[in-house]
Amino acid sequence: MQTSLLKGIVPPVITPLKSRDELDVGGLEKVIEHLLSGGVHGVFALGTTGEFASLSEEMKRDVVTHVCREIKGRVTVLVGITHTSPADSLKLARYAADQGAHALVLSTPYYFALSQVELLEYFEKMVPQLPLPVYLYNIPACTKVSIEIDTARRALELPNVVGFKDSSGNMGYFQQLLQLQNESNAWSLLMGPEELVGEAVLMGAQGGVCGGANLFPRLFVNLYEAAERGDVAEVKRLQQVVMNLASTLYRTGSYGSSFVKSLKCAMSLLGLCEDAMAGPFEKFDGEHRQRVAKVLDELDINLIRATSGPV
Amino acid sequence: MQTSLLKGIVPPVITPLKSRDELDVGGLEKVIEHLLSGGVHGVFALGTTGEFASLSEEMKRDVVTHVCREIKGRVTVLVGITHTSPADSLKLARYAADQGAHALVLSTPYYFALSQVELLEYFEKMVPQLPLPVYLYNIPACTKVSIEIDTARRALELPNVVGFKDSSGNMGYFQQLLQLQNESNAWSLLMGPEELVGEAVLMGAQGGVCGGANLFPRLFVNLYEAAERGDVAEVKRLQQVVMNLASTLYRTGSYGSSFVKSLKCAMSLLGLCEDAMAGPFEKFDGEHRQRVAKVLDELDINLIRATSGPV
Amino acid sequence: MQTSLLKGIVPPVITPLKSRDELDVGGLEKVIEHLLSGGVHGVFALGTTGEFASLSEEMKRDVVTHVCREIKGRVTVLVGITHTSPADSLKLARYAADQGAHALVLSTPYYFALSQVELLEYFEKMVPQLPLPVYLYNIPACTKVSIEIDTARRALELPNVVGFKDSSGNMGYFQQLLQLQNESNAWSLLMGPEELVGEAVLMGAQGGVCGGANLFPRLFVNLYEAAERGDVAEVKRLQQVVMNLASTLYRTGSYGSSFVKSLKCAMSLLGLCEDAMAGPFEKFDGEHRQRVAKVLDELDINLIRATSGPV
Amino acid sequence: MQTSLLKGIVPPVITPLKSRDELDVGGLEKVIEHLLSGGVHGVFALGTTGEFASLSEEMKRDVVTHVCREIKGRVTVLVGITHTSPADSLKLARYAADQGAHALVLSTPYYFALSQVELLEYFEKMVPQLPLPVYLYNIPACTKVSIEIDTARRALELPNVVGFKDSSGNMGYFQQLLQLQNESNAWSLLMGPEELVGEAVLMGAQGGVCGGANLFPRLFVNLYEAAERGDVAEVKRLQQVVMNLASTLYRTGSYGSSFVKSLKCAMSLLGLCEDAMAGPFEKFDGEHRQRVAKVLDELDINLIRATSGPV
Repeated sequence: MQTSLLKGIVPPVITPLKSRDELDVGGLEKVIEHLLSGGVHGVFALGTTGEFASLSEEMKRDVVTHVCREIKGRVTVLVGITHTSPADSLKLARYAADQGAHALVLSTPYYFALSQVELLEYFEKMVPQLPLPVYLYNIPACTKVSIEIDTARRALELPNVVGFKDSSGNMGYFQQLLQLQNESNAWSLLMGPEELVGEAVLMGAQGGVCGGANLFPRLFVNLYEAAERGDVAEVKRLQQVVMNLASTLYRTGSYGSSFVKSLKCAMSLLGLCEDAMAGPFEKFDGEHRQRVAKVLDELDINLIRATSGPV
Repeated sequence: MQTSLLKGIVPPVITPLKSRDELDVGGLEKVIEHLLSGGVHGVFALGTTGEFASLSEEMKRDVVTHVCREIKGRVTVLVGITHTSPADSLKLARYAADQGAHALVLSTPYYFALSQVELLEYFEKMVPQLPLPVYLYNIPACTKVSIEIDTARRALELPNVVGFKDSSGNMGYFQQLLQLQNESNAWSLLMGPEELVGEAVLMGAQGGVCGGANLFPRLFVNLYEAAERGDVAEVKRLQQVVMNLASTLYRTGSYGSSFVKSLKCAMSLLGLCEDAMAGPFEKFDGEHRQRVAKVLDELDINLIRATSGPV
Repeated sequence: MQTSLLKGIVPPVITPLKSRDELDVGGLEKVIEHLLSGGVHGVFALGTTGEFASLSEEMKRDVVTHVCREIKGRVTVLVGITHTSPADSLKLARYAADQGAHALVLSTPYYFALSQVELLEYFEKMVPQLPLPVYLYNIPACTKVSIEIDTARRALELPNVVGFKDSSGNMGYFQQLLQLQNESNAWSLLMGPEELVGEAVLMGAQGGVCGGANLFPRLFVNLYEAAERGDVAEVKRLQQVVMNLASTLYRTGSYGSSFVKSLKCAMSLLGLCEDAMAGPFEKFDGEHRQRVAKVLDELDINLIRATSGPV
Repeated sequence: MQTSLLKGIVPPVITPLKSRDELDVGGLEKVIEHLLSGGVHGVFALGTTGEFASLSEEMKRDVVTHVCREIKGRVTVLVGITHTSPADSLKLARYAADQGAHALVLSTPYYFALSQVELLEYFEKMVPQLPLPVYLYNIPACTKVSIEIDTARRALELPNVVGFKDSSGNMGYFQQLLQLQNESNAWSLLMGPEELVGEAVLMGAQGGVCGGANLFPRLFVNLYEAAERGDVAEVKRLQQVVMNLASTLYRTGSYGSSFVKSLKCAMSLLGLCEDAMAGPFEKFDGEHRQRVAKVLDELDINLIRATSGPV
């Protein structure tokens, strides 16, 4: 499964919850089938969109168990093990390996700010202890610490590191990562923000970890495939649909947390799962939920067009 | 114990470790006796200086157990329960209450950035579930989120909130907190950065949570008492000793983590405990350890003078 | 005039304007007499509160001319020459010297971000070309660039540098500046934010550059004198009046610019001068002006008490 | 000239100087001929790469005079009028109109931080006073203030606003600007950072304001044209050359200012002009100049390939 380079759309799976302390197992299974029927190339459990940091250690293990069980090897399963505690990070990594996950995703510890020297030491110490191949993950908006390009270069040379996910939104930095790849083509470069997946793949990236693909997997698979074959016109057409999601659905509510809240709310409205949040956020109710419902109604036509194109 | 307002020096106790996964129980006991013999007015377990975020959930419980057992009610025990997962935060809070801690310290979740509205909702939801009185804790350099003054005002009105610790280093903000206190004198305002404890208490604050008090508890107790009685000359004299620590001891190494590394290294050199780090950082070895030893030697005279004053 | 160390309250004089392009000369004269009758120890023309960056080069020279003419050597006149263009900065410096100013105030260029090495080079190159003694000025919120402590140490050793004004609000940094002073007592350390002048002088600083002293010079002179003689109780009493200004007057409107807008509006209401802004901001009108008037009314009693104290 | 939409490569012309206070007029003329022979579609005088903020007001007028005189209407001339002083900004705008410039470029004032409401008011007040069509310019790394998308939307509706240059490097934001354009195609969207011009034009932007085009105009014209016709393979080939510039030439020295210093140094080495800096920076000398010379030698082959391609 991990012998070849990961390519394509790898949604960061949302964590369906009945309540803060109860996983919606049935909902998680439905979501996974929804993703697979949309053609995704892998799934990423316990990512930022999966609210990993807000889940208890016990709940994280539950998520891993059920994702691995439901996927049954049909696509690559990545599991996020980012943590402020190296001990708990390793514990989760071992659990993921035991459950049959294929790879791990590791970002920087996010309470204390590490210097770049300390960050490289951290990767050098952690990676050899990990039982599965590792994707590095850059998301400075949440972790405060950016994996600077010289640190990335050296960390990507560690045996067992097989990829890099960049959610910085800093495209100049991403272009530098692409240039690193030209030097050594042995790892997979994945774009985080879904608004940038089209151009990232056009410019040479291997794929995207798109939160919105939880809701509309086929849209992002089509976008990826259009970009991968260099079909600029189709990329631009689908990009408008993607931007429309950002400017309508995700703008419900007015905080940074709107993205995950909207996504879970929309998936609940589509009957896929329940949408309780793990905290510290609360799910959309009342007016906000109605607004998401309205946006979903209006989006449909565009998305049907997107997915019934010549792909 | 919590019936009256907490005042004085409440060190954020370091977490002595034999290795990343093993608590130095004997060291922790010695450290606590060292603090008590220095006259501290309380202890704060699992603070930032205690590397709370880097410890496994299991290790955190171990620390709570042993701190409470060793203190035996001689001074107030505060336990930090700040976490990105509300579920694990609550779990630890209950454990601390069971072990006999007196109060909890709660900062903002530190992975997702909360808006001020969401932050207030978080406090409003969490505080009533907590089994002990609560100190709010502002440390935006680590959490990314500042408890803005209007949020602080409303959160401080919640029943069960008995204090506020500010580690922002933003003295204009701290002055606003002092003004809030003038309106309602029912809670305790504590300064985080040890360089600012003197002036904070001069201006009306109740005390300080000084990391350096792990090493030199009497120095900070003297500083607090001088400030509390308005002895400006003595405050200025002791302040120079405190600043000297910052410009010598804590500047060993060159990163943000130097503070905790230096502190643990110095305490190990003094025979108080072992100084393994919980990660992601590594303890000082070789050259850095020698430098700390040298600084300690040179500091002694000043500190003896400080502690043999008329206090 | 500059043979001894500058001490006390040195207000950053507002720039009274009839319109964006016309100086209110009569207003400026009245403001200066108001300041002198309040006992200030110097004046600082073309500071941040004086909207220096928003004035045309021609208007800046006008301000210098009229301030120097009105002061007639009664107190020290400092002139701000901070600029992004070294050539225009020098031109203004020479003009100020010709008009009889006593010293210059120089911060970092504020468009391009300088590294600390470049910043030190900039000071080393500029200072020797300047015709008057120089105060360095740290205001990173406006300039983006902080004068880090090691840069400050070396720049303060340049011949002709006679002082340092810190508007960072970072009190840990200010304590480091105080420690630099202990090493070499040949320069004057002034606090920017008026909320911190009391404690800064208590801890050893020489004075403050308080914007609010435009409006209530006696209040800040009293605060300075109380702090200078170590009268902690009086400092705390006056500090409450100062904080009250910040939480009422300066909170009119809701942006960072509220401070200067409120100050000018209040001084216009008191009949001291006109309050047009130099741009890009607009002066308070209508509802906001009425709110300032109301706040002024309510402040009076407190401020009379403040100024009729035992000073 | 301005009746149709500006498209293509519009270099932000460097300001060749013999010394801080003397324009290298002959050098400026040579640079302009070099740009025109490279096929550029316009020139932008007094941009960030032109060190506008570091030039005296007099020098700025000199630059405008000579650029307009040399261009003689062959391509569109844009003149930057960004300033912290609205009065001096307008003065320069009128001068540019008198000299025959075609359009103005206006960013946010960069000393005081404006709120978005104040920023929109600023544009609403300034734009109608300007004698030429206006391009808005977003460069928060220098100005501290981002033109947020809702502010951009409304400012772009002002009569006389004909375009928008984004140098934020934030590609998610740029995608939102592209979406604004889909709503109203009457203005030109230009990318600032040269590393992002290829993908920006692929995704629908009209062109780029590439600093590196001062040195290699044909390279960027070819990149623009490849992107404009959707030739993804050629864009990727040229992108590698562009990235190579960033990772070799611009990395000489180690500060943010390396870009302009390297560029001017390289152009001086090619015999185009002298490379004095306007300050606060110093030009490259000695070792750094030799390093640039070496990089230039090694670049040649790649750049010859780039410009002799099938374009």
